[in-house]
Amino acid sequence: MPPHTLPYYFDLAGVAVFAASGVLAARDRDLDLLGIMVVAAITAIGGGTLRDVLLDRHPIFWIVDPTYVVVILVSALLTVAYLRARPAPGMTLLVADAFGLGLFALSGAQLAEAAQCPPLIVVLMGTMTGVTGGVLRDVITAQIPLILRREIYATAAIAGVCAYLALQALGMPRTSAFWIGMIVVVTLRLVAIRWGLHLPVVKKA
Amino acid sequence: MPPHTLPYYFDLAGVAVFAASGVLAARDRDLDLLGIMVVAAITAIGGGTLRDVLLDRHPIFWIVDPTYVVVILVSALLTVAYLRARPAPGMTLLVADAFGLGLFALSGAQLAEAAQCPPLIVVLMGTMTGVTGGVLRDVITAQIPLILRREIYATAAIAGVCAYLALQALGMPRTSAFWIGMIVVVTLRLVAIRWGLHLPVVKKA
Amino acid sequence: MPPHTLPYYFDLAGVAVFAASGVLAARDRDLDLLGIMVVAAITAIGGGTLRDVLLDRHPIFWIVDPTYVVVILVSALLTVAYLRARPAPGMTLLVADAFGLGLFALSGAQLAEAAQCPPLIVVLMGTMTGVTGGVLRDVITAQIPLILRREIYATAAIAGVCAYLALQALGMPRTSAFWIGMIVVVTLRLVAIRWGLHLPVVKKA
Repeated sequence: MPPHTLPYYFDLAGVAVFAASGVLAARDRDLDLLGIMVVAAITAIGGGTLRDVLLDRHPIFWIVDPTYVVVILVSALLTVAYLRARPAPGMTLLVADAFGLGLFALSGAQLAEAAQCPPLIVVLMGTMTGVTGGVLRDVITAQIPLILRREIYATAAIAGVCAYLALQALGMPRTSAFWIGMIVVVTLRLVAIRWGLHLPVVKKA
Repeated sequence: MPPHTLPYYFDLAGVAVFAASGVLAARDRDLDLLGIMVVAAITAIGGGTLRDVLLDRHPIFWIVDPTYVVVILVSALLTVAYLRARPAPGMTLLVADAFGLGLFALSGAQLAEAAQCPPLIVVLMGTMTGVTGGVLRDVITAQIPLILRREIYATAAIAGVCAYLALQALGMPRTSAFWIGMIVVVTLRLVAIRWGLHLPVVKKA
Repeated sequence: MPPHTLPYYFDLAGVAVFAASGVLAARDRDLDLLGIMVVAAITAIGGGTLRDVLLDRHPIFWIVDPTYVVVILVSALLTVAYLRARPAPGMTLLVADAFGLGLFALSGAQLAEAAQCPPLIVVLMGTMTGVTGGVLRDVITAQIPLILRREIYATAAIAGVCAYLALQALGMPRTSAFWIGMIVVVTLRLVAIRWGLHLPVVKKA
């Protein structure tokens, strides 16, 4: 994990927003401050840790560089302070989650690509990296996982990674493709939340 | 992971039936098609991924070979199509789960054996490989894990792996022992489901 | 994993008490004996397995040495036998969990230290190692995770690891610091349970 590169800052941004989403999910649970920090940390590093373990990338991204944990603590403390000052708008958790989903889906895809995985695996690895932090958060705080929401969720991650791969195949440079993939994930997710959009649901007969 | 060997096809069969079981577990959850595919994929690769991570087998079985993901998608799509045409018989999820349990329990045992684990560890590794996909499926879809069912569940995996080890110790070739172990798991599970059999339950005083 | 050292016996003690806590958590679930053993085993090895996977320590501590699984089976069987003879006092699960939390938090911290992790990461790794077994136990047995309890929980692990690091920085030998850290975790946890102590809870506005 070379510091001071764009992916490094994306990982930092991803852990920051997922840490905030962990605090938001934990706030109704009567946890003390350090318990909330632990939930925030597990949410923030879950997706990237799974990505690194599956791709056999050691040391795991947060293990040798304390910057990640510092960013998590600062993000979580700011979120706690904000929540004490005023109530969070109802959608804040979902919006923070959307950005974390996008950042980790694309970073998982990028590292799977670097590990020479075939495109289908790149999509799966990106999607799993994106959804894992949120699934862990929801399981630990005993909530129905967001991945089960009727609105577009995993679908947004899949669409974003596919866009990233397709645009590169069409000749776009990697960084631009990354950004557009990211925008696809977040936009799809926010549009789906705002207007309750969803793909046709699979009905049982 | 050498392609075109028997274990390879067993892994493929295991991911196919667990993918179908993931669709069956997710169908009442109002997920869209891609969300269902993600649940199917996590269910299908969960047990084998844990096995490979614990045994330090890299690359993980599905990471370099897209065949697995293709099999998962095809199996999940066929299951979805079937469910739109007619309702699944009530036991279908349990039967698909029984075959996945057996295939992954035996494959986990076989790879633990190849890694020179002692017999007790072979049994534990086989059992964990067998039950993990189903536990992940049930946790992600917010259901009571099948492993908590009163009927013989983990017990079936343990019995099958023990049979596999015992028959080899008695001189039976590995492949035959594998098949009999597999038959033990699936038969025990199906008999237990059909007649509600269970071992004596541990009662609290 | 050098046998016959102090950390080795701590790991054995940790798996023994977590195995007992797994039995206590599973006892109301109508599981058969082998199902209970599997829940006990997953609870007992969960934290240490996560620790070894994240630190890339292979083979995983229980994979080559069957002693761990033997200890788990004996501890779980004794617990089952005890429960058949008389009801467990209401706090038994919480007390067993407190010792497991302490042992694994400190052992996780010690191994993270040995892997040259920075102090903040040592604290996080110790805490995650300590809480994972209990979280897995609670998720598998479909209970609200203890980590969500209002009383001091993750906080006890963090305090114990911080004490361990601080005392070493002040010149105390590692083994003494380990014991004091362990005492801090267990005492904090037991005091918190007994008198319902907790840090100020983060209230939403």
